[in-house]
Amino acid sequence: MVQVYRAPLRDMRFVLHELFADDDFGNLPGFEEYTPDLYDAILEEAARLTQDVLLPLNASGDLEGATYENGVVRTPAGFKEAYNTFRDGGWAALASPAEWGGQGLPESVNKLVEEMTCSANLSFSLYPGLTHGATTAMLDHASDELKQAYLPKMVSGEWSGTMCLTEPHCGTDLGMLRTRAEPQGDGSYKVSGEKIFISAGDHDLTDNVIHLVLARLPDAPKGVKGISLFLVPKFLPKDDGSVGPRNGVQVAGIEHKMGLKASATCQMVFDDATGWLVGEPNKGLAAMFTMMNTERVSVGIQGLGVGEIAYQSAVAYAKERLQGRALSGPARPDLAADPIIVHPDVRRMLMTMRVYAEGSRALGQWVSRALDAEKHATDPEMKARATAFVALMTPVVKALFTDLASESANLAVQTYGGHGYIRDHGVEQFVRDARIAQIYEGTNGVQALDLVGRKMSAKMGANMRPFFHAASRLIEDMANVEDKALKAWHGAYQQAFGALQMTTGLIAQKALKDPEEAGAAATDYLRMLGLVAMGYTFLKAAGIAKAKLAEGVEDAAFYEAKLATANFFFDRILPQVTAGFLTIKSGKRSVMALDVEAF
Amino acid sequence: MVQVYRAPLRDMRFVLHELFADDDFGNLPGFEEYTPDLYDAILEEAARLTQDVLLPLNASGDLEGATYENGVVRTPAGFKEAYNTFRDGGWAALASPAEWGGQGLPESVNKLVEEMTCSANLSFSLYPGLTHGATTAMLDHASDELKQAYLPKMVSGEWSGTMCLTEPHCGTDLGMLRTRAEPQGDGSYKVSGEKIFISAGDHDLTDNVIHLVLARLPDAPKGVKGISLFLVPKFLPKDDGSVGPRNGVQVAGIEHKMGLKASATCQMVFDDATGWLVGEPNKGLAAMFTMMNTERVSVGIQGLGVGEIAYQSAVAYAKERLQGRALSGPARPDLAADPIIVHPDVRRMLMTMRVYAEGSRALGQWVSRALDAEKHATDPEMKARATAFVALMTPVVKALFTDLASESANLAVQTYGGHGYIRDHGVEQFVRDARIAQIYEGTNGVQALDLVGRKMSAKMGANMRPFFHAASRLIEDMANVEDKALKAWHGAYQQAFGALQMTTGLIAQKALKDPEEAGAAATDYLRMLGLVAMGYTFLKAAGIAKAKLAEGVEDAAFYEAKLATANFFFDRILPQVTAGFLTIKSGKRSVMALDVEAF
Repeated sequence: MVQVYRAPLRDMRFVLHELFADDDFGNLPGFEEYTPDLYDAILEEAARLTQDVLLPLNASGDLEGATYENGVVRTPAGFKEAYNTFRDGGWAALASPAEWGGQGLPESVNKLVEEMTCSANLSFSLYPGLTHGATTAMLDHASDELKQAYLPKMVSGEWSGTMCLTEPHCGTDLGMLRTRAEPQGDGSYKVSGEKIFISAGDHDLTDNVIHLVLARLPDAPKGVKGISLFLVPKFLPKDDGSVGPRNGVQVAGIEHKMGLKASATCQMVFDDATGWLVGEPNKGLAAMFTMMNTERVSVGIQGLGVGEIAYQSAVAYAKERLQGRALSGPARPDLAADPIIVHPDVRRMLMTMRVYAEGSRALGQWVSRALDAEKHATDPEMKARATAFVALMTPVVKALFTDLASESANLAVQTYGGHGYIRDHGVEQFVRDARIAQIYEGTNGVQALDLVGRKMSAKMGANMRPFFHAASRLIEDMANVEDKALKAWHGAYQQAFGALQMTTGLIAQKALKDPEEAGAAATDYLRMLGLVAMGYTFLKAAGIAKAKLAEGVEDAAFYEAKLATANFFFDRILPQVTAGFLTIKSGKRSVMALDVEAF
Repeated sequence: MVQVYRAPLRDMRFVLHELFADDDFGNLPGFEEYTPDLYDAILEEAARLTQDVLLPLNASGDLEGATYENGVVRTPAGFKEAYNTFRDGGWAALASPAEWGGQGLPESVNKLVEEMTCSANLSFSLYPGLTHGATTAMLDHASDELKQAYLPKMVSGEWSGTMCLTEPHCGTDLGMLRTRAEPQGDGSYKVSGEKIFISAGDHDLTDNVIHLVLARLPDAPKGVKGISLFLVPKFLPKDDGSVGPRNGVQVAGIEHKMGLKASATCQMVFDDATGWLVGEPNKGLAAMFTMMNTERVSVGIQGLGVGEIAYQSAVAYAKERLQGRALSGPARPDLAADPIIVHPDVRRMLMTMRVYAEGSRALGQWVSRALDAEKHATDPEMKARATAFVALMTPVVKALFTDLASESANLAVQTYGGHGYIRDHGVEQFVRDARIAQIYEGTNGVQALDLVGRKMSAKMGANMRPFFHAASRLIEDMANVEDKALKAWHGAYQQAFGALQMTTGLIAQKALKDPEEAGAAATDYLRMLGLVAMGYTFLKAAGIAKAKLAEGVEDAAFYEAKLATANFFFDRILPQVTAGFLTIKSGKRSVMALDVEAF
């Protein structure tokens, strides 16, 4: 039994077409030519590509890794061919605007395709992923000239992109960065400095690599207010758009990492490299954050992707591995032992993984719809609501989904037992690969601080309102529900939501006097909010499932399973919210009490 | 900044001499010649050895790994020299009885030395660790002849030992094992079969490897009642005790693992290998469990060891890495940024790791004292009490300590951020190394089942009594405490203990009707019980610290820190008990609801 993955198309169709059918983030202008059938066909095609082309390279890519020799970075065997297939199929251009050669698909569909790519081959997904991030920043901030020169080839996937932020001495605290850019008087700049941890910084998949580099102008103010963004290509394009002379950008080496080994993480040296300003001088951080915010949702989706394949692999093994007998008596007396899926503790692990994946997929879809509405809604009220919801949920999606993914990957290893710890079955790779998603694009601790320190408090809590309003309305709508199970879950949800409201008030109040109180609460609060937001999707899904089953649908098993996952969530996951409430209530005291010297 | 470790001698002396000074597991006969000063001197010597000899080989051993070529297994560079130093210093013989050449040290001291070894180099610790396990089983079950022939050289560390249980198709369910043993009429047997996952199965550290092998006699009944234990040496000893001809044991290969790479995990093939019965025919599993139970406590200590070095490494980095400014205003305006230890979320991670390590060390010490009392107490009541406490706590120590270790190792990586994900700093190794401890010697799920299915229910709950009695008495003793902090922690503890009692009753009641109810509760219950048992040590430690501080001691900072860790535990870790209670209360329903086909 090796890595097992079949794209969860039924659940994807459920979150795409059914779960949010009654909200108003649908029916956006600009997507009139797309039909639900077309979306389903795209998802099916993506399933084939990821299962047949990317999945087979996942374990071999981990084993071989990206390599660096004499300044040249190579991706593992098969990656170049797979990338060509991916690019030629138009997958690189899926979510980019049609005017630059993209397919202009909504994020609600694009993020489902991203999930599949990340399930099948997380390392591979980084290469087109970074390019997409770079094009996003350029669309919003680059001059028309730069766009014309670079966007068509980046959107098509012929050239790739990077984000060059981190330097050896600064990651989270970009105010300290030292890379310099000297104006040359002709509109170009000479960029010099050292960057580390540059994903897809160099490789053999594309003819050119376009770096977006944070650097300081000579007269720049200190700190984050003196950072500008520059476009620096590996090769300078000729006038006809073809690749010209090599620019002053070198790869000094690649990192030896815990996982994600097929993704080249490069140390880059810029030495009088020619570049061009993207956006306003000294406003580079804002431009980079446009990209970073999109990327943060995508990193959450990376977590979901790995969690899903970990779940599926564990299920396959648990159905096949024979060991012991069911506590209720032999389930398969015809076999030497029962498959381990009969054991309650194995079920507990599988159900936890399943619920994490389904919950992440549903909440991820909600946020993706808001991303679409933020961009395309014509009603200013809806646009504002979507923007607020995205702002609040971006750190939640990034941190919660990736935390849950690491839990799931570890549960998969645990399901396999000793066989999970060795390389042969490919599940320990999930643990190593998933681990980075809790760190990059801002550690999950930084996400939590962004949530309580910025998102919560901004504009008198305006970012909180769309979600709190939706949750309140769902609780109200279901207040008189008669079904016994729904009633119980509604009650559990109401209580958890109450705890969240109380905790929100508590933090807001304490943080006014002492920002360290917010800091001490941040990580636990993010998890509380995230689980309550997931709870919304489970309660909603359960209501829909009950209605469908009452109608008498064809695929009743799907809706029955939805009730089972909802039940597990409310019985066994939501109690974490109570622990979070109790923990946060205790305040910063115990966190900050010990003197630094006493550590 | 690389892997950082200084043996936590002050805390070790605290748990050894102070924390349990008032219990009656001390003053055992047979240890009269040992003084507290002598124990301290041994600990200091062990600190030097582990810091100076074993720690420098930890990262290099991970990088190089054990290797296999043409049937020969080699340990990484430096391991042989380190092993010689270890053996020549008498460390291999520390806890073995004096009559076989050991030092006869109590477990209460030996387990502290084990902790240091595991902190400094977990892979290395497996080699002497397995030998110690094998000698333990032989001491209890082998014939005098076998003991005379093998024990002196195994105790001294000249020869090493293994446990050969697992086969490709069976690990947890040993009833399925197939290895056969044919009696030869001369008291010897021919053993044939295939074993996998054999730690230290072969290597270049010792002249001989002595395997304890589970196998079936020709007339053996099916299942676990037909398993016998055999001693099978790699080389058959000559009459003079020197190494003779090669036996029919071969290494077919070693596993490529997630971590623990310097420890050779071997696939062994026994082909008409000469062996001798250890203990009674068909009672092999019981003999193996003598060894397994000792090993399970040691695996818990492995977790503690890795958790401690992860904590120390994270602290060192958090004090050195400059990034951002304290929320309460710059702490080090003289520097470009503040060290990240100023941030509440970093503190939260460091305090969590610290509390896990201190709590595990204290609870581990309590169990080690009981191990000593179980073996050496002359009062039958005390012996029975110690036996019951060890029986209950063995799965807890194994599973909880190793779960917490993986959490700590991951928190260390998170503290390092991107620098934690790359090989250079050595902290991602802690995650990979710690991961196996949750799996081997019985997965943590199996430990939980052992706890609720066997240990809890045996003899009408007799195993539970010593701990429940001790906790009740501490609660009673501190009922009128006046100190405000102690009063608060006492209250929190009383509440958690109440939840544990209620949950215990609930499970006992439900399990009578349906064993799957116990299975569904097992993992959460183990964590609850373990945290409440740790809570006992924190409350007791806090009481001692307060008294010492009132007296006015020299090292007040140590006792102040004890109060800080207790505070953190009661404020921020103990709330998990409430979540556990709520989760277990929901029963097996949501765990078992989904049809196997629906997964």
